[in-house]
Amino acid sequence: MAETRLSGVAVSPGRARGPVVRVAEPLGEPPRTPAPADPAADAARIGPAAAAVAQRLEDLAAAAQGEAADILFTTAAMANDPGLVGEAERLVTVEGLPAPRAVYDAADGFARSLAAAGGYLAERVRDIQDVRDRIVAELLGVAPPGVPELESPSVLVARDLAPADTAGLEPAKVLALVTEQGGPTSHTAILARALGIPAVVAVRGLLELDAEALLVDGDTGVVEPADPRAPVVAADRQAGAEWNGVGETADGHRVKILANVGSAADARAAADAGAEGVGLFRTEFCYLDAPSEPSVEEQRAAYAAILAPFAGKPVVVRTLDAGADKPLAFLAPDPEPNPALGVRGLRVARERPEVLDRQLAAIAAAAADSGAEVSVMAPMVATAEEAAWFAGRVRAAGIARAGVMIEIPAAALAAREILEVTDFVSVGTNDLAQYTFAADRQLGAVAALNDPWQPALLRLIALVGEAARATGKPAGVCGEAAADPRLARVLTGLGITSLSMNAAAIRSVGASLAEVGFADCEAAARSALAGER
Amino acid sequence: MAETRLSGVAVSPGRARGPVVRVAEPLGEPPRTPAPADPAADAARIGPAAAAVAQRLEDLAAAAQGEAADILFTTAAMANDPGLVGEAERLVTVEGLPAPRAVYDAADGFARSLAAAGGYLAERVRDIQDVRDRIVAELLGVAPPGVPELESPSVLVARDLAPADTAGLEPAKVLALVTEQGGPTSHTAILARALGIPAVVAVRGLLELDAEALLVDGDTGVVEPADPRAPVVAADRQAGAEWNGVGETADGHRVKILANVGSAADARAAADAGAEGVGLFRTEFCYLDAPSEPSVEEQRAAYAAILAPFAGKPVVVRTLDAGADKPLAFLAPDPEPNPALGVRGLRVARERPEVLDRQLAAIAAAAADSGAEVSVMAPMVATAEEAAWFAGRVRAAGIARAGVMIEIPAAALAAREILEVTDFVSVGTNDLAQYTFAADRQLGAVAALNDPWQPALLRLIALVGEAARATGKPAGVCGEAAADPRLARVLTGLGITSLSMNAAAIRSVGASLAEVGFADCEAAARSALAGER
Repeated sequence: MAETRLSGVAVSPGRARGPVVRVAEPLGEPPRTPAPADPAADAARIGPAAAAVAQRLEDLAAAAQGEAADILFTTAAMANDPGLVGEAERLVTVEGLPAPRAVYDAADGFARSLAAAGGYLAERVRDIQDVRDRIVAELLGVAPPGVPELESPSVLVARDLAPADTAGLEPAKVLALVTEQGGPTSHTAILARALGIPAVVAVRGLLELDAEALLVDGDTGVVEPADPRAPVVAADRQAGAEWNGVGETADGHRVKILANVGSAADARAAADAGAEGVGLFRTEFCYLDAPSEPSVEEQRAAYAAILAPFAGKPVVVRTLDAGADKPLAFLAPDPEPNPALGVRGLRVARERPEVLDRQLAAIAAAAADSGAEVSVMAPMVATAEEAAWFAGRVRAAGIARAGVMIEIPAAALAAREILEVTDFVSVGTNDLAQYTFAADRQLGAVAALNDPWQPALLRLIALVGEAARATGKPAGVCGEAAADPRLARVLTGLGITSLSMNAAAIRSVGASLAEVGFADCEAAARSALAGER
Repeated sequence: MAETRLSGVAVSPGRARGPVVRVAEPLGEPPRTPAPADPAADAARIGPAAAAVAQRLEDLAAAAQGEAADILFTTAAMANDPGLVGEAERLVTVEGLPAPRAVYDAADGFARSLAAAGGYLAERVRDIQDVRDRIVAELLGVAPPGVPELESPSVLVARDLAPADTAGLEPAKVLALVTEQGGPTSHTAILARALGIPAVVAVRGLLELDAEALLVDGDTGVVEPADPRAPVVAADRQAGAEWNGVGETADGHRVKILANVGSAADARAAADAGAEGVGLFRTEFCYLDAPSEPSVEEQRAAYAAILAPFAGKPVVVRTLDAGADKPLAFLAPDPEPNPALGVRGLRVARERPEVLDRQLAAIAAAAADSGAEVSVMAPMVATAEEAAWFAGRVRAAGIARAGVMIEIPAAALAAREILEVTDFVSVGTNDLAQYTFAADRQLGAVAALNDPWQPALLRLIALVGEAARATGKPAGVCGEAAADPRLARVLTGLGITSLSMNAAAIRSVGASLAEVGFADCEAAARSALAGER
């Protein structure tokens, strides 16, 4: 059966084999006719159907944790949006559409607006389509689209999975996730890693593959038909249980194992998982729900709550990363043709330094409140001149250590000059890959390029590692690449001095490093730079 | 007066000094009230006003040449668009707006749609705003916005210039162009270079500068107040007149001086200017006006017409570079949140190889018809695997030489592997800068980053030069950087073996190289890599 071997992007490690369960395709466009006999009565069905869907999503959210819970609450709020229900009712009563089609068209109007807004909002298109299909199914009285109830451990195969699908999964019954679309930084990939389920995405030809059972390799991205009579194989999710909590190779080369956090729940999960500190503290949460810029005191309290579990430990706080791709009302960004290449991150701070200064004051106060060893870094830095400007403002705020993200190719190429004017750098592999390959990380069609094992990306990271060695300053990695236990060895061999990841990956990455010597990491780095896995 | 010295992005070389003439700001939003006393009569004024504006733009177009003429004809067509006039009339008769405000609002609706479409269409927003302001001025009976009639040689200062403004200029009376917005690859910058006028764009603080006269340095980007009594200085537009037509340094290091062409008129201008061949033949023109894919025979005839002036000379044809940013109806691209990071260039060809194969067949036939020494290269290549795939298809079409553009950072980082599977590469500095700095080349707000003198960009080009030396294969540059006489020396020193540019730059670049030895070029390259100009 080797001739039907397929290949995609490995996004969550581990190997598994078992029977295939296909996720039902969405219902498609409901017909425009016949017009409802009693439009008012038909329109009146929409509100309750939407409320029922919202309730079920909220129940799922209450049973979920962390990121998954956040996503489900957001999706439930979309189902309850009075604008969506009102527009669908209007389409029934004014335009004479049947209720299912009215919901479908109203949701599509919203989806188009989100897609046109680009960036962060465009990523929500899949969620609104999921809500749409659930309300339509409710109105038609059929089973909702998505993952069916699983009777035995299975490999799930889908075109793409909505966050709601993935979050409703019983991890014990899912051997692996394989999708034809999606990318390495999609919500599906991130959640699969958080659940410890092997996953491969962007597998072209997957849906045409007629296999009763599959062997899935979440390390190499290979997916191939298996003998359905062969025993089921589940990935070993206990890997890392033996880690002693100190990030180092078997011969004592120290690489701190840190966590990425963006909420108080994340911070507790990271501390429970044994993180040695925080390598990336995202501060957007503090601004996203606020109608205007939060005050210094509001920010101070919010930051202190997250810093609390890390008293006496290192925490790297990243300043606000907003822009046309993650629009905040009070910053009033202009629309841009390519928001990912526009005024975001530090570029906003250069235009509005008073917003940065207020955030730095809040961080300095929260650091004193919590006793955490706080450093601060800037997102979207391209040049040493920008890095020096930022470091100056951080020091003026009374914060001892200032660094920058390396997520733009120019910054990796100027890593030495940047380290000369800062205290540390941290590589964001998700955005760095996006720009290095000119491949939108949100776009399934170019997902295969956004592969952190590509030698071109590793060569840029190697430049950062060399600059760290030459200047004697630390260089971390806080992108998704750090959460891959095998890539963690490669990054260590390239000279990276800390790795920051989701809490779920900490023990397996710690254990992976503890199994090998530093020379093994260097050998792994040489192989990877030459294009060998 | 040194304290008010400003700095921007130098986009067209030369130094000039003279009195300032400010380009009038647009009229702004006309008032919504009072409502017209006779809406039908007010609405009836819109059509004739739009027609008068269109006629004046067509007259300007007829007097212009090449790119400038194309842009003016497009803008005239916008003014004549029945959709625009019809919507404005509706706003008067149905919504009761005064005619000027109705035109303003109708045009803004169009502009928003263009901006939402992103990419190529979003670049047209400035043009539709220019049309809007001209029709509003016509209705109000005031002078149109833009450049006033110049009485004596002057330095023009503006927020930004519409293509129509720049094209209407009398070059003999314009000493220099300076704008507060705009970027190095904007139409304004390209046209300024074509007209041989020194220009600096993205000069922050320019409009607040209260100076009667300015000294403008189109090589360094410095703009400073001058004594209005000092004699006027015009840039020397005769530089290069002494070039002997062979691209080489004073000590005989050969660097071919080639032309970028995209139409038969360009090809004739390039041949007349003494180009040794064509380094970039853009083929989009052949597809842009076509309702469906042009046939092989149609393409063959179109290509042969452009190849004709170059019988016996080298011509590098670039295959179709389309995508969501340059949408072609027959390729039906999906909308993308960041079109510049999406499915464009070779990525479209991977999905639709039959379109590529038909283009290659047409190129092979046109090459035989014309006797030009034709090579073919692909746009938007990221990996050696993609380059090998393309080279295979080029050779299968019977074309001897296959290369690829280096315009994605990953391709520069993998230049050696790419040269191992192709015959040559050509660096597109405009897009390479855009991705290396994560700075949209269309966006004025990030224009200062898109500076081809940035060491990070030159380091990537140096990797390409080293790969060319190591493999013994040619590496050209065909982006705007090649048209800068001083940067041309730097690129030569980095190991680049040919430079391709607009016809207007050929003689000055040829002369610049002829003045220095290769060791001087290497020294210039070392200085530039270290961040010195």
